[in-house]
Amino acid sequence: MLFEAPIRLEDLCTKLACTFVGNPNTFVVGLNEIHVVGTGELTFVDHPKYYLKALKSPAAVVIIDQKPENCFGKDLIITPDPFSLFKQLMEKESAFVPSNQLVSESASVHPTAIIQPGAFVGNNVTIGANCIIHANVTIYDNTIIGDRVIIHANSTIGADAFYVKRRSGYYEKFPSGGFVVIENDVEIGAGCTIDRGVTNKTVIGEGTRMDNQVHIGHDTLIGKHCLIAAQVGISGVVRLEDYVQIWGQVGVAKDLTIGKGAVILPKAGVIKSLEGGKSYLGAPAEETKTAMRQWVAIKKLPEIIRKFKI
Amino acid sequence: MLFEAPIRLEDLCTKLACTFVGNPNTFVVGLNEIHVVGTGELTFVDHPKYYLKALKSPAAVVIIDQKPENCFGKDLIITPDPFSLFKQLMEKESAFVPSNQLVSESASVHPTAIIQPGAFVGNNVTIGANCIIHANVTIYDNTIIGDRVIIHANSTIGADAFYVKRRSGYYEKFPSGGFVVIENDVEIGAGCTIDRGVTNKTVIGEGTRMDNQVHIGHDTLIGKHCLIAAQVGISGVVRLEDYVQIWGQVGVAKDLTIGKGAVILPKAGVIKSLEGGKSYLGAPAEETKTAMRQWVAIKKLPEIIRKFKI
Amino acid sequence: MLFEAPIRLEDLCTKLACTFVGNPNTFVVGLNEIHVVGTGELTFVDHPKYYLKALKSPAAVVIIDQKPENCFGKDLIITPDPFSLFKQLMEKESAFVPSNQLVSESASVHPTAIIQPGAFVGNNVTIGANCIIHANVTIYDNTIIGDRVIIHANSTIGADAFYVKRRSGYYEKFPSGGFVVIENDVEIGAGCTIDRGVTNKTVIGEGTRMDNQVHIGHDTLIGKHCLIAAQVGISGVVRLEDYVQIWGQVGVAKDLTIGKGAVILPKAGVIKSLEGGKSYLGAPAEETKTAMRQWVAIKKLPEIIRKFKI
Repeated sequence: MLFEAPIRLEDLCTKLACTFVGNPNTFVVGLNEIHVVGTGELTFVDHPKYYLKALKSPAAVVIIDQKPENCFGKDLIITPDPFSLFKQLMEKESAFVPSNQLVSESASVHPTAIIQPGAFVGNNVTIGANCIIHANVTIYDNTIIGDRVIIHANSTIGADAFYVKRRSGYYEKFPSGGFVVIENDVEIGAGCTIDRGVTNKTVIGEGTRMDNQVHIGHDTLIGKHCLIAAQVGISGVVRLEDYVQIWGQVGVAKDLTIGKGAVILPKAGVIKSLEGGKSYLGAPAEETKTAMRQWVAIKKLPEIIRKFKI
Repeated sequence: MLFEAPIRLEDLCTKLACTFVGNPNTFVVGLNEIHVVGTGELTFVDHPKYYLKALKSPAAVVIIDQKPENCFGKDLIITPDPFSLFKQLMEKESAFVPSNQLVSESASVHPTAIIQPGAFVGNNVTIGANCIIHANVTIYDNTIIGDRVIIHANSTIGADAFYVKRRSGYYEKFPSGGFVVIENDVEIGAGCTIDRGVTNKTVIGEGTRMDNQVHIGHDTLIGKHCLIAAQVGISGVVRLEDYVQIWGQVGVAKDLTIGKGAVILPKAGVIKSLEGGKSYLGAPAEETKTAMRQWVAIKKLPEIIRKFKI
Repeated sequence: MLFEAPIRLEDLCTKLACTFVGNPNTFVVGLNEIHVVGTGELTFVDHPKYYLKALKSPAAVVIIDQKPENCFGKDLIITPDPFSLFKQLMEKESAFVPSNQLVSESASVHPTAIIQPGAFVGNNVTIGANCIIHANVTIYDNTIIGDRVIIHANSTIGADAFYVKRRSGYYEKFPSGGFVVIENDVEIGAGCTIDRGVTNKTVIGEGTRMDNQVHIGHDTLIGKHCLIAAQVGISGVVRLEDYVQIWGQVGVAKDLTIGKGAVILPKAGVIKSLEGGKSYLGAPAEETKTAMRQWVAIKKLPEIIRKFKI
């Protein structure tokens, strides 16, 4: 997420009452979670596993819990608890302001869009031409919806990311400051949940159609013209390229890429990135022909064990 | 779906600006998707795989993309794009008319029925005696609900079918013109989604009870006195006979029949029709005793491989 | 559930027009389902499998369908249909009184709590300080919510248990008379469903956080500081101890205990109680290292069959 205006690193640290290592005149343009941080932005890292990812990212400034051997040209804010400092900054930028109306006065709804009774449209939401938002849909603040989008009843767009920090004895919630973008000609089924990004955007690409009870995690980018069947769950920070088809009750683990035109068959569990143009099956998902061979073999197994007395 | 009045084939084709092969005086009584088309109705087919099904169906008229060898007595409308012509006809018959009230004035709600705050009841919905419709339920247009039906909160009855046509580079939505019928003494859990038929009805049979977050696809016919546990997903055009029990998180693929009294155990994935009176398990689902034997064999497999150095 | 005041067994039986075996002066303090019945309460049992459990429970009085060999000091009400008698008693205690307002006048909402538009808050609900109840959430009667609880949009708290009695030819619904308790600092995702207890409470322990589309069955007790990912389904009468982590699309069968700190990996199907402090995988779930060995073995199986021509 971008700040309203870029801010000098030194000024930012004065506001946060912290110190920095680097150039006081570096301009910080915004802040973002490590997976999605952009040029000139600030991010945080608190686990050695991700040090390199943060330091080699496009970020201008990294909040980190110890001085790294090589800072790869980043300015640093060193603090024992980067999460807290980042959260503090985040909360200044994205406090929850409750709307007390079903359709917020700050929402921009195209006059040809239909908002059915009971639908909630939060602050600063944009809804394009010829959309249909069915009854009891809930659209959180700052969601951007294109033209000719249909959202069926009881779906939730833009709820908070499932994103916490393990503390001693409890989990600390990180406030979600991102938002959801739904491009033109998307159709979203009933009872779906699409979380907003932690600091950035979750995107449903143009022409994608999803059935009911689909879950899409924070910061996930769904490509154009994908089909997603009922009860599919896609975790956070997943990238679906264009024309992917995912059938019923599939689960996709976080931070994976599914290549263009891949087809994932029902009930599969995807735990690694998948190449495009192929079909996948099983949990863990493998290429369909591989998974089918295993299924055929398993069917024979009891007879083999009996016959060979093994 | 039936037309308001039967129409002569010749008159229909004049309205649609298309030609026909057959008897101009054939009366067309309505239109329906191939899986559910009835006597005297019109349907469409655009894939050789389904030519015979369409031509041997009870339809009076078939919209088809090429002249078949044998028309089996059907009158034909031959056009390179049957989907578009059928869609055009459908849209004339079932345009979406938004209601601007939580309970539409055209809905017929029995005086003993309880409609809780926030529930949406669409146009021409019928709700019988002693029903309880909990808060934030959404009931789309034309749904028919019997007596003593309970629908728990945030469920959606009658959203559009997940039904599209692949075009070059995108998917075209087919408008849903069907509806949902919920018979007497049904109970539907919270957060369920029951889609209406594409051109016909989705039915939940008398006395059937379902837990939360169940998904039922378009044109599916659920029998009487079935039990369906939480997070089950049943695709479109499935027929559940009476007294079927389906346990948690099961998925059933489209266009299958599940026989009377079948029991499907948790997490099963059903990809072919199942005989009644038996118990099934696994994905793909098999008879429970077969699936159990495979599970026992798999448990032994690592030890067998180690022992025999295979 | 407790009665408003304890009642003498003889007086209770006069009200119910039934007879008893035992001490007329036994005070009955409330009624509860067999799994959760407490000291001085009344419960029912109608299957020999559960006779001993009922008779050795802390109950004061047991409604039973035949005279047991040993009554273990319980007073008994013997009737051919214990379910009906218990249901009759239950219905007297917990009739559904519909609220005709989005936020019931009998609800007690802390002034610092935020209730977003479209949320329904039933009769006698308590909501603590600094809670956020998002739009279109539905909270059934008698729910108790602590401080700093966040409930995301379209979730349902306190819908009826999925609890029926098989009769000849149909299922009879048992009315739910229990309620839900959500302790401090809990976060519940969007589109979740948490059922109330049949006669007692369903509890979500302090600091527990759940993602979207999670289902929690009746009378289930979730410990403190658990993490439950999207689309998990937990059946009724399950006990999750503290610090349990359950990942996406897992299912847990009814009446199990999951030990402290257990981790259940995505898509697992849990059918027996699990020890704490370990990691589990697969359906049926086993310890992760065991399940992994089986998966490795299955991958080799087609090649083994080919090589050994078995």
